[in-house]
Amino acid sequence: MSAGELVMHPVGYVESPIKELVDAPLQGDEGETEAWIQLTEADQRAGSDLRPGDRVVLLTWLHAASRDVLAVHPRGDRTRPAAGVFSTRSEDRPNPIGLHEVEVLSVERGRLLVRPLEAIDGTPVVDIKPVLAPVNRR
Amino acid sequence: MSAGELVMHPVGYVESPIKELVDAPLQGDEGETEAWIQLTEADQRAGSDLRPGDRVVLLTWLHAASRDVLAVHPRGDRTRPAAGVFSTRSEDRPNPIGLHEVEVLSVERGRLLVRPLEAIDGTPVVDIKPVLAPVNRR
Repeated sequence: MSAGELVMHPVGYVESPIKELVDAPLQGDEGETEAWIQLTEADQRAGSDLRPGDRVVLLTWLHAASRDVLAVHPRGDRTRPAAGVFSTRSEDRPNPIGLHEVEVLSVERGRLLVRPLEAIDGTPVVDIKPVLAPVNRR
Repeated sequence: MSAGELVMHPVGYVESPIKELVDAPLQGDEGETEAWIQLTEADQRAGSDLRPGDRVVLLTWLHAASRDVLAVHPRGDRTRPAAGVFSTRSEDRPNPIGLHEVEVLSVERGRLLVRPLEAIDGTPVVDIKPVLAPVNRR
């Protein structure tokens, strides 16, 4: 590891009927796919208080992304000018972290069923956070 | 690097008047601190289309976090039962990525002034994404 590198490990993996990028819509809220999150054994305690009905942000590692792309045509439309990737939701970017706001539908030991999740089967999950309630309810 | 590790590099760093954790409120939207994001030279093209008024999600690496903590008392209140960290916004978690929804106030070459950002000075930034507009305006 060289200086400045930040090393993550997957806390789980997506199990999805979506097997290839071409099957996924551009944004998760444009689809209704259900998918399972299988947590790693080491990280199951971290997810043990999640319940059906919870709204969470899944953070994934978009492992099929191109990390040396700094500008893209928005939504792949070449009639729109290329924009710096920090102004787009392109998965091609220096650190390809995906953000997915989903609802927990079902919980089994070490597994969560969520919707909608447009991520390909096998995508690593790196974090799960609750969607924040209004300030006065924390 | 061992199998399964995911390696990121900082695309920038926070320059903030907040020098220590004790000075930061628990959630960014409970404060009004302005901070600069200095992008690295290699990643400045990625941020070159950001403009004042843009609303973005900053993803940071919470480098002072404890990564072996899997359960915490919410908001540090020991009268509340310990919860798995994926049900909390604790910065102590296996992969301590921070999510901060901020407004871009000012843009200089390779630098962005944003608010509110409750992250300590020197925090690495790993990604910047636009807040998604409603589906019909993409």
